[in-house]
Amino acid sequence: MDKTLQKNLTAFLETFLTEERKFLLHKVLENRTRHITVVVEDLYQTQNISAVMRSCECVGIQDVHIVEGENDFQIHKAIAMGADKWLTIKHYQKENAPMLTCIKELKAKGYSIVATLPDDNSHFLDELPLEKPVAFLFGTELSGLSKAAIDAADQTVKIPMYGFTNSFNISNSVAIIVSQCVEKLRRNSSINWQLTENEKNDLLFDWVQKSINKPELLIKRYLEELG
Amino acid sequence: MDKTLQKNLTAFLETFLTEERKFLLHKVLENRTRHITVVVEDLYQTQNISAVMRSCECVGIQDVHIVEGENDFQIHKAIAMGADKWLTIKHYQKENAPMLTCIKELKAKGYSIVATLPDDNSHFLDELPLEKPVAFLFGTELSGLSKAAIDAADQTVKIPMYGFTNSFNISNSVAIIVSQCVEKLRRNSSINWQLTENEKNDLLFDWVQKSINKPELLIKRYLEELG
Repeated sequence: MDKTLQKNLTAFLETFLTEERKFLLHKVLENRTRHITVVVEDLYQTQNISAVMRSCECVGIQDVHIVEGENDFQIHKAIAMGADKWLTIKHYQKENAPMLTCIKELKAKGYSIVATLPDDNSHFLDELPLEKPVAFLFGTELSGLSKAAIDAADQTVKIPMYGFTNSFNISNSVAIIVSQCVEKLRRNSSINWQLTENEKNDLLFDWVQKSINKPELLIKRYLEELG
Repeated sequence: MDKTLQKNLTAFLETFLTEERKFLLHKVLENRTRHITVVVEDLYQTQNISAVMRSCECVGIQDVHIVEGENDFQIHKAIAMGADKWLTIKHYQKENAPMLTCIKELKAKGYSIVATLPDDNSHFLDELPLEKPVAFLFGTELSGLSKAAIDAADQTVKIPMYGFTNSFNISNSVAIIVSQCVEKLRRNSSINWQLTENEKNDLLFDWVQKSINKPELLIKRYLEELG
């Protein structure tokens, strides 16, 4: 859609929102980032997938990449529960080497690929440089990340652990890592972590529609009046 | 049990462990803390209770306080799953004003009671002083902490949030808060966060028995040989 038309349509649709709603949309938009993104591989517990999306949404991460495996039904169930409403979810289906496709696309966009791996050779999270955009890879509940994912990663990080248990629940790992990294990002004024104006406009157009009942009717009316 | 006998028994039982096992027990012991503790109120999802215990164990927190409500069956189910094996779990049953009893006991032990509350008046987590031992209160999945708990708390903290969703999954909140605070604690050499020698000896005696098949038979034999 033509960018000017999209902006005008957004402004038109915004007139149907309360001031509070409009304020919230813009506040959240200013805090959104794609500088950090999350890739989850073959999760099989619906509540984990939902919790991962919820944590990403809470800290302001816009994109979540879902690499399907044997358990894609659970993913669709989580999505159906609306956990993804405000996020940009990208699916990679198991037919086409999903993890490698995902990593290839993210590298092409300039992301540094970081596998989360509780392993002696992994760096600790707080040593991870954030100047370059980072995509964190998280593996399935039981077996962790696939070898293909680990091999394709630029580096690996781990969360410090001091007990007998040698891993966190997957959604807890995501929560610890994204909350820590996004906070670090927000404190670092030299990193341009916010969305571009174009990205903000596209997202706002989407969110405004999601905040209105039957937006398509209003859009139709607006376009008809334009003639 | 007499402390010297306990120490000798521990040493005797340790002779049945591999060097690796012994090393792990002592390493974990040196990293255990009661300076930070976690209180969960009336959780009803087994996987959340298990995930909370797992996160506490991972970061080195020894004590978890479980305040029962309507959903104590789920708690027993989680315990049955062994999530608590290496932890000291204290139950507060719903018959006797469990949360107030728990808070009273913790205050008597010198804990500062901190309710986690995503609220305008709450301080952010990183502003929380850790010189005094801290007990974090976490509420049930849907309704959060009870008013009784919030009223009895010394202060409230929140995790920064920037999205539409205004809370994390409960086990994710616990993971974010305990991992951040315990790391801060370990970096602060002026705080004496480790267990006392007495606490270490008691815990080691317990852990050594948990690392052996039928320890009671070995203990019986040892005591008989003592005569």
